[in-house]
Amino acid sequence: MTNPQAKLQELKIHLIEVNDLEAANALLYWDQSTYMPEGGAAARARQSATLSKIAHERFTDPGIGKLLDNLRPYEESLPYDADDASLIRITRREYERAVKVPPAFMAELTSHQADSYQVWAAARPQNDFARVQPYLEKMLDLSRKYSDFFLGETPGYEHIADPLIDVADYGMKASTVSARFAELRGQLVPLVEAITAQQPADDTCLHRHFPEAGQWTFGLDIARVIGYDFGRGRLDKTHHPFTTEFSIGDVRITTRVDEHDLRNALFSTIHEAGHAMYEQGVNPDYEGTPLAGGTSSGVHESQSRLWENVVGRSRGFWQFYYPKLQAVFPDALADVPLDSFYRSINKVQRSLIRTEADEVTYNLHVMLRFDLELALLEGKLAVRDLPEAWRARYEADLGAFPADDKDGVMQDVHWYGGIIGGVFQGYTLGNIMSGLFWEAALRAHPEIPGEIAQGQCGTLLGWLQDNIYRHGSKYTANELIERVTGGPLTIEPYIRYLRTKYGELYEL
Amino acid sequence: MTNPQAKLQELKIHLIEVNDLEAANALLYWDQSTYMPEGGAAARARQSATLSKIAHERFTDPGIGKLLDNLRPYEESLPYDADDASLIRITRREYERAVKVPPAFMAELTSHQADSYQVWAAARPQNDFARVQPYLEKMLDLSRKYSDFFLGETPGYEHIADPLIDVADYGMKASTVSARFAELRGQLVPLVEAITAQQPADDTCLHRHFPEAGQWTFGLDIARVIGYDFGRGRLDKTHHPFTTEFSIGDVRITTRVDEHDLRNALFSTIHEAGHAMYEQGVNPDYEGTPLAGGTSSGVHESQSRLWENVVGRSRGFWQFYYPKLQAVFPDALADVPLDSFYRSINKVQRSLIRTEADEVTYNLHVMLRFDLELALLEGKLAVRDLPEAWRARYEADLGAFPADDKDGVMQDVHWYGGIIGGVFQGYTLGNIMSGLFWEAALRAHPEIPGEIAQGQCGTLLGWLQDNIYRHGSKYTANELIERVTGGPLTIEPYIRYLRTKYGELYEL
Repeated sequence: MTNPQAKLQELKIHLIEVNDLEAANALLYWDQSTYMPEGGAAARARQSATLSKIAHERFTDPGIGKLLDNLRPYEESLPYDADDASLIRITRREYERAVKVPPAFMAELTSHQADSYQVWAAARPQNDFARVQPYLEKMLDLSRKYSDFFLGETPGYEHIADPLIDVADYGMKASTVSARFAELRGQLVPLVEAITAQQPADDTCLHRHFPEAGQWTFGLDIARVIGYDFGRGRLDKTHHPFTTEFSIGDVRITTRVDEHDLRNALFSTIHEAGHAMYEQGVNPDYEGTPLAGGTSSGVHESQSRLWENVVGRSRGFWQFYYPKLQAVFPDALADVPLDSFYRSINKVQRSLIRTEADEVTYNLHVMLRFDLELALLEGKLAVRDLPEAWRARYEADLGAFPADDKDGVMQDVHWYGGIIGGVFQGYTLGNIMSGLFWEAALRAHPEIPGEIAQGQCGTLLGWLQDNIYRHGSKYTANELIERVTGGPLTIEPYIRYLRTKYGELYEL
Repeated sequence: MTNPQAKLQELKIHLIEVNDLEAANALLYWDQSTYMPEGGAAARARQSATLSKIAHERFTDPGIGKLLDNLRPYEESLPYDADDASLIRITRREYERAVKVPPAFMAELTSHQADSYQVWAAARPQNDFARVQPYLEKMLDLSRKYSDFFLGETPGYEHIADPLIDVADYGMKASTVSARFAELRGQLVPLVEAITAQQPADDTCLHRHFPEAGQWTFGLDIARVIGYDFGRGRLDKTHHPFTTEFSIGDVRITTRVDEHDLRNALFSTIHEAGHAMYEQGVNPDYEGTPLAGGTSSGVHESQSRLWENVVGRSRGFWQFYYPKLQAVFPDALADVPLDSFYRSINKVQRSLIRTEADEVTYNLHVMLRFDLELALLEGKLAVRDLPEAWRARYEADLGAFPADDKDGVMQDVHWYGGIIGGVFQGYTLGNIMSGLFWEAALRAHPEIPGEIAQGQCGTLLGWLQDNIYRHGSKYTANELIERVTGGPLTIEPYIRYLRTKYGELYEL
């Protein structure tokens, strides 16, 4: 162990270069989604592929593996959660994953994803599942092969989905996720039944005319008041809202505006600001390294959903901000009392489209996809039988029966342009964790709800920064939950949150 | 010469990768200059340096040199201006330049440029030349050293400035440029004297209130009518207007708006659109290779200035568009007749600031800088004597005497953040060439001025596309002039243009 600091410095230089390439690639994507003229599309795809390729080449350079080997004694001499030890550990984890997949396979996968996406985009409006079926079959085959690169070699993998889940939610096993999801489904299905047995909320007030300029100004204000730092970010328009990070000092959000649906811009802005505040809150010492950025899809979603739903759809928050919203849109909202508005933004209904679902039913959409993924990967369900299995699960879980595949099994891009396995669980893990973290924050600061009702979100944000954001990727989701709550992932706090809120709303 | 097509294909793959890195870097800069939040600055500088470094490493890879050697027989078997031959020739030229400068020297230069820029930015408002003097002395030393890497080795270099001039204006020798500039100065000094002996034009109408929204809409319209393709570009706001290319399908322009100076946004938009139409007009087959983009600084400026001045400050153009401008700004312009407006936008006056100078005096600002650069490089002028030499030349050429160094020798960033030599000549070469190309276009299409007076710029644009734009970097500036005019660079057409326009305006 001669001079580990020099080796570590050398490693950081490599890592920051890779990060710079990835950040430039993220900017290529941000630009493409916000300002790029049509004529730029062809070259942009090529430029992005080049940057991905070079970043991957540089990250999988055997020199990095050698440095990581050299640094092992140093890492072992440090506490587990020392910054240096964590940087070495997380880099090794990512490096080992990256080198296990042969470049030729990655090229085949990337190429199939592009082809499959194109076919899906054309076939979906035609409701033509037969056309995508062979592409989906090949995607399933590739997804299994991807998993195979890890299954035999890596200790701890029990299920074919485990390596796939690890990509976005490291350390979450299919067995644990399935168990928690089964518990959650057992609670949610009767809750949804009880709510939907009642008179549905009238949310027509949200579909009046809300001029774009007012929505824009109000969205900027709301993002600011919850704590999104515009000195280190900005808000732009796009088709499919997303958050992207170029550095800890530049984390941007995007939204879309519908003049006849107030929810679109408002809640997507709060949602993306939640993602962004997480990345803005990472320890600045981690800049440019694998420790920057959120630790998992689930923890990321826990933050976007905590701010969007737990805060942004709470009565207290709107007690303070609803008069301000009415002042921006007097024509649309002057005659709508707070209580009606609050019920409108929390309307629960059985529906077919995941991205439009309310807070309660949303998880049912997600969990059935997760189960179908597992069944496909396990070989218990054939792709040709997927549309039928989809309809059966919608009927069973949501009492809603898709009339066609377009709004059924072809609804989400994930399986067609991404991979099968490991892509859906993060949404519901995020909801579950939002309940865990919210309860922990309230235990530490019982004054939080009262402050929010005064328009103050600082105590909550500070607690999240201290306990979650600043750690970046240092801890896995499970480690973070253990640190924050003293126990493992459990659905109870989330269920308590839902039962309290919706019990009061629907007098259950 | 076994399978040259395969070698060429291999070369192109390398070149396109380098181009993709450079395009991503250009986007980092565009974003930094338009939308980036303040917090992004530190990481952005690092990201940009990383991309530059990797692009340079990849372009100077000895594999490229070997491919170029292998391709020499194929190149020699083709006509000089065949696309393949030109690609090999231009790539070799750029490759040989890139490999002649040691990376350690480039690192020293880049680092000194950054330091020197910082000192200049702080010292200029203080009018403190003493503070920048040592930085300028080191810059002169580095500029000479840069030149030395080429002088001995490359045939055809006669003057220490020649290798520096080659970077932006390949093939233009200091001796030729000096000779043309001396001729031009001989014509311009008396012309400026004759004009400024008269009553100056009253241009107060340009300083009334022009609300930003109207300037923006009108600027978009004007860029469109002269032929800038918004399907392959866009206009955004920035501090210092520039054009940037990410691909032939995405060439963007920027402008700034001053509500009390109509000229700012209007003429900078036309100027940048001129640059951009050149790059948009390159043969699409050249995409991603060194043949795309303009061939030299001078030819590029010839296009921006042809559109800005020869077209955009012509009476004919405003005969058609002035009523439309008046309709956008009735409060400011309803009482201003076309003739007054035309005289205002062509006001000639002796002034101290290059970037604010009119079409006639502008070249005097540029040429004195070029001469001072040569004197510095030749060792005939010491940096400590530069402020005095600057004042003497302003007095002699412009009859204007800078009261301080801030608006004197410290006026332009070029020598402080760039290099000394090869940076100024392009502006006046561009003006000279704009006269050459304009005359050639009128010879081919005498109907052009009449069409412009009808608001139609298509014939002119088409001629420029066919004769200049589509060739990209295939021909050097001198080759292009020879092809277009049948002769060498000559100032007469430009002088004829100025004498006709200003003779009529000032009844000389």
